[in-house]
Amino acid sequence: MKATAAVLNAFHEPLDFQEFEVQPLAEGEVLVKILAAGVCGSDVHMHRGKDPRTPLPMILGHEGVGEIADTGGPKLDLLGRPLEPGDKVMWERGVMCGKCLYCVVRKQPSLCPNRKTYGISYSCADAPYLRGCYSEYLHVQAGAPFIKIDDDIDPAVLVAASCSGATAAHSIEVSHIRPGDVVLVVGPGPVGLFALAFALRAGASRVYVSGTQADASRLEMARAFGAAGTLVVGETTAEERREYLMDVTGGFGPNVVIDCTGAVRALEENIALVAPGGTYSIPGIAEPRDRFPVDLFTWIARKNVSLQGVWVSDTDHLWQSVQLVLSRDFPFEQLVTHRFPLRDAMAGLAAVESCEAVKAVLVP
Amino acid sequence: MKATAAVLNAFHEPLDFQEFEVQPLAEGEVLVKILAAGVCGSDVHMHRGKDPRTPLPMILGHEGVGEIADTGGPKLDLLGRPLEPGDKVMWERGVMCGKCLYCVVRKQPSLCPNRKTYGISYSCADAPYLRGCYSEYLHVQAGAPFIKIDDDIDPAVLVAASCSGATAAHSIEVSHIRPGDVVLVVGPGPVGLFALAFALRAGASRVYVSGTQADASRLEMARAFGAAGTLVVGETTAEERREYLMDVTGGFGPNVVIDCTGAVRALEENIALVAPGGTYSIPGIAEPRDRFPVDLFTWIARKNVSLQGVWVSDTDHLWQSVQLVLSRDFPFEQLVTHRFPLRDAMAGLAAVESCEAVKAVLVP
Amino acid sequence: MKATAAVLNAFHEPLDFQEFEVQPLAEGEVLVKILAAGVCGSDVHMHRGKDPRTPLPMILGHEGVGEIADTGGPKLDLLGRPLEPGDKVMWERGVMCGKCLYCVVRKQPSLCPNRKTYGISYSCADAPYLRGCYSEYLHVQAGAPFIKIDDDIDPAVLVAASCSGATAAHSIEVSHIRPGDVVLVVGPGPVGLFALAFALRAGASRVYVSGTQADASRLEMARAFGAAGTLVVGETTAEERREYLMDVTGGFGPNVVIDCTGAVRALEENIALVAPGGTYSIPGIAEPRDRFPVDLFTWIARKNVSLQGVWVSDTDHLWQSVQLVLSRDFPFEQLVTHRFPLRDAMAGLAAVESCEAVKAVLVP
Amino acid sequence: MKATAAVLNAFHEPLDFQEFEVQPLAEGEVLVKILAAGVCGSDVHMHRGKDPRTPLPMILGHEGVGEIADTGGPKLDLLGRPLEPGDKVMWERGVMCGKCLYCVVRKQPSLCPNRKTYGISYSCADAPYLRGCYSEYLHVQAGAPFIKIDDDIDPAVLVAASCSGATAAHSIEVSHIRPGDVVLVVGPGPVGLFALAFALRAGASRVYVSGTQADASRLEMARAFGAAGTLVVGETTAEERREYLMDVTGGFGPNVVIDCTGAVRALEENIALVAPGGTYSIPGIAEPRDRFPVDLFTWIARKNVSLQGVWVSDTDHLWQSVQLVLSRDFPFEQLVTHRFPLRDAMAGLAAVESCEAVKAVLVP
Repeated sequence: MKATAAVLNAFHEPLDFQEFEVQPLAEGEVLVKILAAGVCGSDVHMHRGKDPRTPLPMILGHEGVGEIADTGGPKLDLLGRPLEPGDKVMWERGVMCGKCLYCVVRKQPSLCPNRKTYGISYSCADAPYLRGCYSEYLHVQAGAPFIKIDDDIDPAVLVAASCSGATAAHSIEVSHIRPGDVVLVVGPGPVGLFALAFALRAGASRVYVSGTQADASRLEMARAFGAAGTLVVGETTAEERREYLMDVTGGFGPNVVIDCTGAVRALEENIALVAPGGTYSIPGIAEPRDRFPVDLFTWIARKNVSLQGVWVSDTDHLWQSVQLVLSRDFPFEQLVTHRFPLRDAMAGLAAVESCEAVKAVLVP
Repeated sequence: MKATAAVLNAFHEPLDFQEFEVQPLAEGEVLVKILAAGVCGSDVHMHRGKDPRTPLPMILGHEGVGEIADTGGPKLDLLGRPLEPGDKVMWERGVMCGKCLYCVVRKQPSLCPNRKTYGISYSCADAPYLRGCYSEYLHVQAGAPFIKIDDDIDPAVLVAASCSGATAAHSIEVSHIRPGDVVLVVGPGPVGLFALAFALRAGASRVYVSGTQADASRLEMARAFGAAGTLVVGETTAEERREYLMDVTGGFGPNVVIDCTGAVRALEENIALVAPGGTYSIPGIAEPRDRFPVDLFTWIARKNVSLQGVWVSDTDHLWQSVQLVLSRDFPFEQLVTHRFPLRDAMAGLAAVESCEAVKAVLVP
Repeated sequence: MKATAAVLNAFHEPLDFQEFEVQPLAEGEVLVKILAAGVCGSDVHMHRGKDPRTPLPMILGHEGVGEIADTGGPKLDLLGRPLEPGDKVMWERGVMCGKCLYCVVRKQPSLCPNRKTYGISYSCADAPYLRGCYSEYLHVQAGAPFIKIDDDIDPAVLVAASCSGATAAHSIEVSHIRPGDVVLVVGPGPVGLFALAFALRAGASRVYVSGTQADASRLEMARAFGAAGTLVVGETTAEERREYLMDVTGGFGPNVVIDCTGAVRALEENIALVAPGGTYSIPGIAEPRDRFPVDLFTWIARKNVSLQGVWVSDTDHLWQSVQLVLSRDFPFEQLVTHRFPLRDAMAGLAAVESCEAVKAVLVP
Repeated sequence: MKATAAVLNAFHEPLDFQEFEVQPLAEGEVLVKILAAGVCGSDVHMHRGKDPRTPLPMILGHEGVGEIADTGGPKLDLLGRPLEPGDKVMWERGVMCGKCLYCVVRKQPSLCPNRKTYGISYSCADAPYLRGCYSEYLHVQAGAPFIKIDDDIDPAVLVAASCSGATAAHSIEVSHIRPGDVVLVVGPGPVGLFALAFALRAGASRVYVSGTQADASRLEMARAFGAAGTLVVGETTAEERREYLMDVTGGFGPNVVIDCTGAVRALEENIALVAPGGTYSIPGIAEPRDRFPVDLFTWIARKNVSLQGVWVSDTDHLWQSVQLVLSRDFPFEQLVTHRFPLRDAMAGLAAVESCEAVKAVLVP
């Protein structure tokens, strides 16, 4: 049996469509037929050669929803349900070792020093080749946790749960939202919209979302998701935004800020707004950058604030994210602004790179 | 290569010493030469046929310290250190699936529905036979977390960390000791003495330990471990003990009680003593028993108290327990009151059954 | 100035309407004009003489919403906003000492040994007399936290937040709901409906509510609040309910059960259903009762479960509760099934005693 | 009755010794005879005019141990014990409002926007004048929590618990030490030595302490307190220190760093060492300073690290700190390197300013 995948052979160049021989499944391995592959901003970065570790040649795609094609022996999902060919599934995109200090003692497997990721860490030069979701099939390693999706949800709507949603769940976990807190989400992309929904789920009384004028349609989505208000950089001054947020928080500022932008401008503007005892978390910072000058006394020490890193996610976050989308309490279908067949993967990358798409999804 | 093990073929009968053919190691499996095997109270229960699930014939022994005899390919410990033949090691006694809701979402692998335990869940009728520590060698499954012991500590002193210590660590985790709390440990057996040490490590300001007159030498150990005081059932009345504990806690009672006895009498006496907002945890209850009448209003509701179950442990608890013993801050060597060669395993079971031993250890 | 209040002079007898001289306000004291007084189940118990500590003669009513009539000097609310005559307000119904171990060290002021409650602990024989909400005015002690209500919400809809809602918030706090958990609320009274809403706010993926056939209209409310399903004792057998809950939880059972009934039958049926690692909290148990036989091994120890008491609440819980109602995300207006003028307080007690009312409110 | 106090009338100038008329005690107020007043580094800053808010004229001294001289009516301590003249006591140095969002909802009274501090926030121009501990007597406001000291401990040894110790307890609380963690304390002054002891109490397996060559005797104290090792800037290079810490932590780095220096050099060297998932807390930063350039990706985001502010402390931290010293598990008497009579307060300030003293204490 053969499978076609989009292969990144050279940075900046169009992906090549190559056929691979599907390898036999060892005990515990799973062959998944891809139903939807999300195009993530980091796919664009990898295509542009901005991540020096990219193992060319490779198959991009770490966000996926699929159906079981075959399993190497009996295989159960998270809840102990048998997985059969045809079952719709999601799986943990990270491959952790399961036996190191971070996996089994600290229980933060996202920090496993041996962690790899489908669609990021694997070359397709070596068998079993199919280790990314820009492909007809994905060959999943033994030991991977699976979630069976007993629901007729559109795979394209669910796919962002596998990375953007899980990362947002992680940022909420480390931000320690208390019931009744006011939260500010900076940057209404996929991670930001998930963070907004998760913050409401975590008991925030009100969540505000800020973005730029180019984010107009995303901010409209934020309102549809339940944002108490939106703030537009370019239409208002930083001082006006500060006044607004102080006004709606009794002068304290938001208790938690989730900055999904990774932009220095956003940090400069917003970290000073955090209420005493609050948290400023930065899921948006995913690659090296220049140092940023922090006012340790005013922003951090005097207010007992935490500046909190957020690195990727684990299966707990994936689970939360999948359940959030399946609850249908939030209009996640709005995120899927663009769909392309696998053959048009380059158009998907272009739609994300231009920020035209909120979420672009490759479908068979 | 052959290995001799003590086999439980029939309840109440002497263990038989049989030779098994050591099986070849698959990828990730480890062959451990046993340096010390702890005799646990539950070994006695199994020998007496009190655990109906006991899979005869079997090799007892879930507490072990050993040295690497061989590995199926390169193998690392928790900290990423390579394991070589001759390295002294400990390992997780529980075998969890690593991909279910409790393993990867809730991160409470001790509740994994697929959990098995060396020396408890495996028959020696099937290859690879050597699945208990009352043996020259133990055949450890692939994927098991290992801890390399870079320390010349006596394996017999360390061995109780693998079950009693880990269970005590778990009971401390769920008891939520706050800095400065007063703790009462009921029952100065191995779990109780570990719980005492862990409670001090968790920031308790004072830990009291209660036992019976038969526990005299164990209560002396408790004082050597740092107990602020000991209480002897039989020498004092329940009312005198209550008065004492109220007196030393400003009338509030101990914030946390760790009841390691599993005895109804202890629960009846002590649960009423918990301070408001405190916890009564019960690591000592490991087998079915009659229902116990609880005063829900007075003991639980009116005082905002938690009656907290504690079921076995996971690798986090094992790690804590090993570090505790290795710190040498507590005289754990005192626990090892009896040592027997493997051939005298029956004498070990007898010493534990009679409560003569605090900890009996089988050594090669 | 004079104020009329409903006075409980003798158990079982009709309340008497008496006039009291309003006392001058000392520094920090506040005179509140009552806009709504909730009739709580414990008011009925006190009227029936079931609480032996009831300090006759007294003014019932610990649930209240009011407006500032006067303040002893400048007075600020929780957020630092000045309180002026005419401002709509709520206040902490408990009077804590603010300087004991539970108030300032453990930060669980609901367990302050000196805690008193308006409408419960005070006689009206002594000045300043007006210490209950079944009255035209309430005389609030210095140091009480206030919340200014900047919202045109109907005071009768808000009033249950002061006790039922705050108690529900406390039960959620100690139940440690994780994102995605399944929750079962037993008993759809005011505390249960608040607990349902709070559980959803705390990130529960689904909340089920069980009640009796007499609770039919309350269970309908539960569905309007967002319950994923309701279970009716009398229409289904205990075994059918168990099967249903196991089915919707993949065989694990609900992670958290909030039992608001205080009924032995409910506990007997539901505690065995808790998922491993879960919590069974009992906000419904507010008065002494016979001991209840607990299966410590099966229900608690083997499953690592916590049986958790919940005693009253503090200002954190009040704040959460007020914010929950003001969010208007849940139809709390449905709870107010009965309104009576203060003069008809006896009718209010009767409507609660007969369970005809979900919430009965006294209005001026 | 008259009391003499050391008054700061002008920055840089010697303190003046003035007599004040002791004012009558209102209900709840307490007059304390000072037995020991700690000289804190911030006293030096105030004397040097570095804190622009210093309300001249004023009495310095926020660290104190005293005995009850008189009380305005009956007064109880934290544990409900009556306070009588002659009782040895400590008290909360901060004056919080007890009714704002931070006091009663968020339960972080150290962030109360109305917080004042004896010896820092009060002028002695206004009655009751005696609001600092560089005095024979301190006039304590109504509502202050007190701790009765039933112990013959030397007040000079206990006095640092009131500020340095409480601040260290707070830094430990927000650093979330897990059992078995490795901790690095930077700066072996009073806060650092308390942090070392608290970290051990919180379950750290090993605590390392770093300082400069001028800290030689303090680093010796650190070893006497139980430090697993000390690192000397000036004797070793930054790279050698990094290698050492990586070596003793299996290559991960310390899980928690408590930086008590407030020095940019220390932050630059140490923040990069934190293990993934760890915390870098900064109790040492107590006054405005230039911005510090932070490598957000490498130090914070990629490692899921928290850079955590620590602002002052509350009564929970004071309580922990007092209990720690009273436990006598650590040689706190070594900290008191200098004692001066109140009349020589200037010598005390000089001993602290020159770093000659670890702790200088004024005694009657």
